Amino acid sequence: MTIRPPAEIGMAADDVDTPALLVDLDAFEHNVALMAKMVASFGVNHRPHAKTHKSADVARRQIAAGAVGQCCQKVGEAEVLVAGGIQDVLVSNQIVGTRKLNRLAALAKQARIGVCVDDAGNVEDINAAAQRFGAKIEVLVEIDIGAGRCGVVPGKAAVELAKRIDAASNLSFGGLQAYQGRAQHIRGHGERKVAIDKAGALVKETVDQLSAAGLACRLVTGAGTGTFQFEAGSGIWNELQAGSYCFMDADYALNLGEEGEFFDTFRQSLFVLATVMSHPAKDRAVLDAGHKAASIDSGLPRIADLADVTYSGASDEHGSLVLGPGAPDIKLGDKVRLIPSHCDPTVNLHDWYVGVRGGVVETLWPVGARGAAF
Amino acid sequence: MTIRPPAEIGMAADDVDTPALLVDLDAFEHNVALMAKMVASFGVNHRPHAKTHKSADVARRQIAAGAVGQCCQKVGEAEVLVAGGIQDVLVSNQIVGTRKLNRLAALAKQARIGVCVDDAGNVEDINAAAQRFGAKIEVLVEIDIGAGRCGVVPGKAAVELAKRIDAASNLSFGGLQAYQGRAQHIRGHGERKVAIDKAGALVKETVDQLSAAGLACRLVTGAGTGTFQFEAGSGIWNELQAGSYCFMDADYALNLGEEGEFFDTFRQSLFVLATVMSHPAKDRAVLDAGHKAASIDSGLPRIADLADVTYSGASDEHGSLVLGPGAPDIKLGDKVRLIPSHCDPTVNLHDWYVGVRGGVVETLWPVGARGAAF
Repeated sequence: MTIRPPAEIGMAADDVDTPALLVDLDAFEHNVALMAKMVASFGVNHRPHAKTHKSADVARRQIAAGAVGQCCQKVGEAEVLVAGGIQDVLVSNQIVGTRKLNRLAALAKQARIGVCVDDAGNVEDINAAAQRFGAKIEVLVEIDIGAGRCGVVPGKAAVELAKRIDAASNLSFGGLQAYQGRAQHIRGHGERKVAIDKAGALVKETVDQLSAAGLACRLVTGAGTGTFQFEAGSGIWNELQAGSYCFMDADYALNLGEEGEFFDTFRQSLFVLATVMSHPAKDRAVLDAGHKAASIDSGLPRIADLADVTYSGASDEHGSLVLGPGAPDIKLGDKVRLIPSHCDPTVNLHDWYVGVRGGVVETLWPVGARGAAF
Repeated sequence: MTIRPPAEIGMAADDVDTPALLVDLDAFEHNVALMAKMVASFGVNHRPHAKTHKSADVARRQIAAGAVGQCCQKVGEAEVLVAGGIQDVLVSNQIVGTRKLNRLAALAKQARIGVCVDDAGNVEDINAAAQRFGAKIEVLVEIDIGAGRCGVVPGKAAVELAKRIDAASNLSFGGLQAYQGRAQHIRGHGERKVAIDKAGALVKETVDQLSAAGLACRLVTGAGTGTFQFEAGSGIWNELQAGSYCFMDADYALNLGEEGEFFDTFRQSLFVLATVMSHPAKDRAVLDAGHKAASIDSGLPRIADLADVTYSGASDEHGSLVLGPGAPDIKLGDKVRLIPSHCDPTVNLHDWYVGVRGGVVETLWPVGARGAAF
């Protein structure tokens, strides 16, 4: 069931079989180095989100550049990271059920493992699993600061939950998970800042109440690629979880260009390489990459390199192209690079990263946690 | 990189880890038997589409019920099917590029392999690959009968292409690939029939022109779950490719209930099992299955078993539930079955089918061609 890679190291990038997930290594390394520099300039830590890349190979490079560890959403992702040598992993999510909690506790015997909670019964269940394995697990309280998904209400409810964690035999209270997911995709720089300022006030109030109760937050962690500059500069968060920055995508590109954007110097490093497989009419062609190769939850992919060519529709295995009057001559077999609309779920569709530099395949990284959904 | 299964055979279905891809085996077997009976009653053949299930285990059951073989979209899928013992595979799609064509030709040494074309140069390339491997490949001409994607214009262009195939040393002309993809999701029974009647006229005209040129169509193949009754009854198609019927999904369910629907007796057999991982407010809960577990290209998944509970939003790893006044009490750890909006890309997100019957896990089938995109 292990799918072969679509390329061999040393081959010309143009010969890579398609659809394939390409990483422009120069752009990727630029992004990793730039984020490390930005984060350091703010004096906060960076714990990149592995939900984006699902790869110990990417994680090791982020950590080599200064990241303190990784965060992820699933126990299966944490397992792949720890197996790949990552020693500090925060599951920035709720983990429910005995089977999953046993796996989490087993992992905590091998690496520093944190997890988030928004429910008192879940705290008891995590402690019971940690007891079964003789493990210690760091537990953070997730607060809902505007995303309207998981998390307790900031303030008193968070303090109550933190006290339960602090009292549990095999748990330590690690601080707050405070991620404003909705704010990442607000287009205006100013509006995004307003959303994070508002969230920050809720976080600060909760940190203060915890402090008054004698509970220190080792971590106040959150932020994404769309907002990290605001959390970093707030004096409230001390750890950033931005992950998409290393690849970028067409959705985040829509945030670019506004005055004050720190991250408009990140470069698109992730592409889906596709082949023209049909050219049935002068103004139409079809690629071999549909929505099983590039996710469409955030819109259709974009064409990277060709003028007046539009990716107009995705079916399971086909991408339809509309060729405008300014389009270049297209022929069967031509390779086309797509910019995914959303990097995370696109990566999850593939088994291999094909790392390219100077027109040559330099490396192949497995997407080790692809499908590690539970 | 092989992801462990979320269940063990013999365990209670309620204990399956989540998110997981469940197959209700009774419903699945009902669907397979019912389709076999329907197809036989029309006196046509059935070649179910493996793009839906990507599994030799499913394919073998369809063939045991009477199907003549399988079709698929990718060489990688064909490889998995042939490795799993399937001896007759039609790639109902264009295959472009030397690497892929070499793999296709190699496969044709092991099984009966067909492929579709809509380009004269592609015919030459396929023949060259077949020559390199000393293989014989059956080649069908794909005609565009209203889907507006791949395929040549019906009639003369198809005849020209068929002549080239017929003249090629290592190819045999197999007939016509004639699939009206757009018609599958037209909601009205009558409008769907009109679309297929119109398509049928184009197919018939092409078959007649081929016949006049001395080229017989062994196969006139196409149709999907939304329209197969019309193709089957047309006297024009002699082979049906319907695949989704074995699982069904929320999108095809929208076609049900119209008078004359043969397929409204198919049952939903495919589910994504999810767990309530957060219940932050009385009217809201969160599942551990977002659009990395159930595709949203055809809309959000539906809740199978709970009244007044709506799946209101999918993010990568989370599904948001809105709990209405009539909703049952929901608690952390509760399992919820989702009906995928679109079965094919949902299956492609998972590594294992968990086959359940009578509340017990009876079988585990690998989704062998998951990610076999090239």
